[in-house]
Amino acid sequence: MVRFALFGAGRIGAMHAANIAAHPRAALHCVYDVNAAAARKVAEAHGAQVASSVATALADPAVDAVMIASSTDTHVDLITAAAKAGKAILCEKPIDLDIRRVEQCRRDIAGTNVPIQLGFNRRYDPSHRAVREAVAGGEIGALHLMVITSRDPGLAPMEYLKVSGGIFRDMMIHDFDLARFILGEDPAEVFATGSVLIEPALAGIGDVDTAMVVLKAPSGALVHINNSRQAVYGYDQRVEAFGARGMVQSENWRGSSLRRWTAHATDAQEPLLHFFIQRYAQAYLDELNEFVACVADRKTPSVGFEDGRRALIIADAAWESLRSGRAVRISYD
Amino acid sequence: MVRFALFGAGRIGAMHAANIAAHPRAALHCVYDVNAAAARKVAEAHGAQVASSVATALADPAVDAVMIASSTDTHVDLITAAAKAGKAILCEKPIDLDIRRVEQCRRDIAGTNVPIQLGFNRRYDPSHRAVREAVAGGEIGALHLMVITSRDPGLAPMEYLKVSGGIFRDMMIHDFDLARFILGEDPAEVFATGSVLIEPALAGIGDVDTAMVVLKAPSGALVHINNSRQAVYGYDQRVEAFGARGMVQSENWRGSSLRRWTAHATDAQEPLLHFFIQRYAQAYLDELNEFVACVADRKTPSVGFEDGRRALIIADAAWESLRSGRAVRISYD
Amino acid sequence: MVRFALFGAGRIGAMHAANIAAHPRAALHCVYDVNAAAARKVAEAHGAQVASSVATALADPAVDAVMIASSTDTHVDLITAAAKAGKAILCEKPIDLDIRRVEQCRRDIAGTNVPIQLGFNRRYDPSHRAVREAVAGGEIGALHLMVITSRDPGLAPMEYLKVSGGIFRDMMIHDFDLARFILGEDPAEVFATGSVLIEPALAGIGDVDTAMVVLKAPSGALVHINNSRQAVYGYDQRVEAFGARGMVQSENWRGSSLRRWTAHATDAQEPLLHFFIQRYAQAYLDELNEFVACVADRKTPSVGFEDGRRALIIADAAWESLRSGRAVRISYD
Amino acid sequence: MVRFALFGAGRIGAMHAANIAAHPRAALHCVYDVNAAAARKVAEAHGAQVASSVATALADPAVDAVMIASSTDTHVDLITAAAKAGKAILCEKPIDLDIRRVEQCRRDIAGTNVPIQLGFNRRYDPSHRAVREAVAGGEIGALHLMVITSRDPGLAPMEYLKVSGGIFRDMMIHDFDLARFILGEDPAEVFATGSVLIEPALAGIGDVDTAMVVLKAPSGALVHINNSRQAVYGYDQRVEAFGARGMVQSENWRGSSLRRWTAHATDAQEPLLHFFIQRYAQAYLDELNEFVACVADRKTPSVGFEDGRRALIIADAAWESLRSGRAVRISYD
Repeated sequence: MVRFALFGAGRIGAMHAANIAAHPRAALHCVYDVNAAAARKVAEAHGAQVASSVATALADPAVDAVMIASSTDTHVDLITAAAKAGKAILCEKPIDLDIRRVEQCRRDIAGTNVPIQLGFNRRYDPSHRAVREAVAGGEIGALHLMVITSRDPGLAPMEYLKVSGGIFRDMMIHDFDLARFILGEDPAEVFATGSVLIEPALAGIGDVDTAMVVLKAPSGALVHINNSRQAVYGYDQRVEAFGARGMVQSENWRGSSLRRWTAHATDAQEPLLHFFIQRYAQAYLDELNEFVACVADRKTPSVGFEDGRRALIIADAAWESLRSGRAVRISYD
Repeated sequence: MVRFALFGAGRIGAMHAANIAAHPRAALHCVYDVNAAAARKVAEAHGAQVASSVATALADPAVDAVMIASSTDTHVDLITAAAKAGKAILCEKPIDLDIRRVEQCRRDIAGTNVPIQLGFNRRYDPSHRAVREAVAGGEIGALHLMVITSRDPGLAPMEYLKVSGGIFRDMMIHDFDLARFILGEDPAEVFATGSVLIEPALAGIGDVDTAMVVLKAPSGALVHINNSRQAVYGYDQRVEAFGARGMVQSENWRGSSLRRWTAHATDAQEPLLHFFIQRYAQAYLDELNEFVACVADRKTPSVGFEDGRRALIIADAAWESLRSGRAVRISYD
Repeated sequence: MVRFALFGAGRIGAMHAANIAAHPRAALHCVYDVNAAAARKVAEAHGAQVASSVATALADPAVDAVMIASSTDTHVDLITAAAKAGKAILCEKPIDLDIRRVEQCRRDIAGTNVPIQLGFNRRYDPSHRAVREAVAGGEIGALHLMVITSRDPGLAPMEYLKVSGGIFRDMMIHDFDLARFILGEDPAEVFATGSVLIEPALAGIGDVDTAMVVLKAPSGALVHINNSRQAVYGYDQRVEAFGARGMVQSENWRGSSLRRWTAHATDAQEPLLHFFIQRYAQAYLDELNEFVACVADRKTPSVGFEDGRRALIIADAAWESLRSGRAVRISYD
Repeated sequence: MVRFALFGAGRIGAMHAANIAAHPRAALHCVYDVNAAAARKVAEAHGAQVASSVATALADPAVDAVMIASSTDTHVDLITAAAKAGKAILCEKPIDLDIRRVEQCRRDIAGTNVPIQLGFNRRYDPSHRAVREAVAGGEIGALHLMVITSRDPGLAPMEYLKVSGGIFRDMMIHDFDLARFILGEDPAEVFATGSVLIEPALAGIGDVDTAMVVLKAPSGALVHINNSRQAVYGYDQRVEAFGARGMVQSENWRGSSLRRWTAHATDAQEPLLHFFIQRYAQAYLDELNEFVACVADRKTPSVGFEDGRRALIIADAAWESLRSGRAVRISYD
């Protein structure tokens, strides 16, 4: 059994709590949140304890692992503390919005030897993963082109957007990671552009709501990513990988396979699954499965701290490109 | 060049006239219709003559072939006269609604040796034909099940329905022929049932507007056909053939490949092509291609008088089944 | 908490055990199987007891409900005993293969007042259920035609087939129930036919492996069902409902949304989910959800003993039709 | 009747000749090609004359219009001569590969007042055009993102590629025009990148075979285009337009609507139509329809000289971006 301390009892923390509680090889030992009432509610739902502080939870020998689902600005401190306490770590993306803090964290945890897994959920989606497997297995030959479409169903509140780090660090960072995952190599160059087409107030904080990026990999493979903060038809998540011997596509999922035929439209499909918790429900389970197996069997998670760091480096380079109008070479050193 | 006399200048006659006129190896020589104005209009559109009578047209040595697109009750007489005049014949389905008249015609034309082709347009549809080729080529192994869906976009006028011969002789006769074509054998048994769900007045003339049939072939292959006189979403024409080694389906065609995504429906496709002249436009061209090639090259058309006769025999057996509630064995003798 | 005794620890029993164990409002109390080792294995996997006999389990006041997943010939006795013991019952289909035993059971349990739910899993499939909701909600207007396609991925062993009751009582009984569910009325008439095209040995036991049925409802709605014991491309489960105002279709589900494009085929989809436990995984969960809610909240399950009885009556009538070649009127008295 | 002189009797010239000959309001008067045998073959197939020279054809008062389907380097001279001879002009794209020659041509024909139409066939594709209509009609609200996928089935011969002007002027120029057509505004900025992944010899001539571009319009709308010289699954032509109120997609067309289900793949569709003459067959007809109507009815074609010029300006800017690694502002002056 892998016994978890959960840090953060908001929407995504509550989902992780339920997944841990239902997992045959995992147990939810305790929950901490700065909002004590939220922690209590999640803890009670699953018969777990409320931890009085992070330190208490990390000092508890009954805790094997931590699930970090608190706000982004707390991630670095929690990773550092948990690593020094010898707890395995599953941390929601991103590590931090500031690459300097990520680098400092990297130095601080050097030498600790705990499993650290980053919560890049898309890597665990059965269809996106099948794209990776097709590419890695040579099914489509050398990879030439990739197109990632990633559009949210609606704009987050401005209070959130103000501290989100901007579209590349908050939203497209998932797609940067997915690109690295499927490419099997690190992009060497990024070009980014964007527009404010949905929420004019974003201009005031230097952000955009609509963005397009092109990545170039050392192999010459080219990747396009497009993001929108608001797709009225729902949460649109697609990946297309095109190579020398064919193409594979990961298409959207729906809640049912119903098709409708009326005088106005034929063969219309069901709405898309609403948002990430529904769309990536299976991915969150599989992400937890991998982490629990790594902790229990002392293996290294396939997506770790370095993956979180590199995705942020690409996001920073994308901002630089957006501002300069130039393709930016990416250095991962 | 194959020079045609066209009998019948209504909607389908006008379409055939245009196809003949545009065909590189065919020419429209003359047009006859009881409605002289209609004949004149079609003839003028393509620089053809108006024939003063059927006899005149058939006596004209410049005429190689006749296209019979007049009302059903005239088909038998026109076939007989044209065959005796030595003209090749392309006749719209059905031969007649009365099997006794068909048998008489069969005897009357025995010994004449002209190419006779029946206008079962579905046989020439590229997708339906591909189903036939997959079955005949062994691609799906032995044929086990077939499902034919055939639904009109809207009810014909009651005046037409009254003289149509009923749903099995007027509408499903196409599907009986298609079943024979794909099966590669003659159905041995038919069960039919139906309901009046769209136009109550049909009950008064002993017809139905909604029908289901099951055919059983000597090989044991089973065929289901369903017909509706009114599909609000359009002219629905599909064929599914299932066998020991797989399945092939001929799906509907649309006027464009546009897909629409809105807050209410996702991936909705364009409306179906409205009705037979649009839906089977390519089929009508390919039907004419085969006929012209047969006449010019002295070959026998692949779908002939006997196919029209057999489809009518199945339709008659379906009526008998509908009335008796029993599966009816079909005799083609 | 609804505490279950599980009768039957085979493949489907083990699946139900896991679902019960994971259900937040249910618990697996004990397991009984004539094969004690099988019972022990399932019980141990979920921390449940092994019951020494059916009687012991039914006498245990800690048991609120029974899940009957044993062989068909034991269902009637277990239902009767459980009902008399006052336990709520969730029983796998069919009640029995012999309508006389079903009628006797019906008399025997008259007056007992426990919730009884039949395991017609298809009713709980999100897509099939959406078809029912579209029909019941008037979305497609009056129902005119329904086509149910139901094909297994491979033939069961002959030992099973010999005692299965034949294709209509064993396999198509699901589709008869689904037809009743979506129609919202009881079919009045059935025509059935079938062939032996896959396993010649079936002829020797009077069964078929390929079947087509047409049902007619009192409203005039017509239903076609086709079954095959072996679809090489997988477990094919589709429903199409066509009405005065449109059509809805429940299409197959797949394990991922991957599409493949090669030189040989374009836009090819993933294989179908292998068989009922995978295909109807969500349905089995939702079926259990309804039952637990009914037991806990003292409500009547939506699919009960009478539904099991009526589906069997239709199956018997289908056999009679297959043998007689006639449409058979169905009496539910 | 609009009587045509055809310049160029190669593959695409032969196709245009057939379309003209079959058009009810057009006639093929004469054909000129530097290869006299080719000219004769096309002329004879349609009962047209062979013109002894361009000058002869342009001096012939029986000629109303010219169809320019000769090699790219002859276009500018033919346009200038035809315009001065007062003949209406339908010219295959591009006008020329050198913007300076295009500017000179523009000056040379200033003051002549003949209809000039550029052969951007994609504008006439029913599905691509439906995307334009959905955008222009406000169906998807303000346009935010557009993705154009355009991949050839196989590499052209190196001799052709050497004089092609490179991927942006030869191939993506179609997509630049399509982007302008659907945007309804001129892109203000272009970023381009590319790789040599298919034919290493391209590196030697400074060209690429795989390319990605991002355009930014004054409205803020962003457009991504990707090109590959070789898609093993066929000629892949798709457009996706995403806006504030929804999305429309123009999907690929196929030769039939057949779907195949085997043990290895399910619901696989037919191969794509092979190449531009098949894929855009309807578009070429509709292009001719518009031109003939414009000439006959003295209207201005919707796609003219200026459209050809602007697409070339974007292509040149794309080359500049590819070489500099910067987004390039586009000036149309």
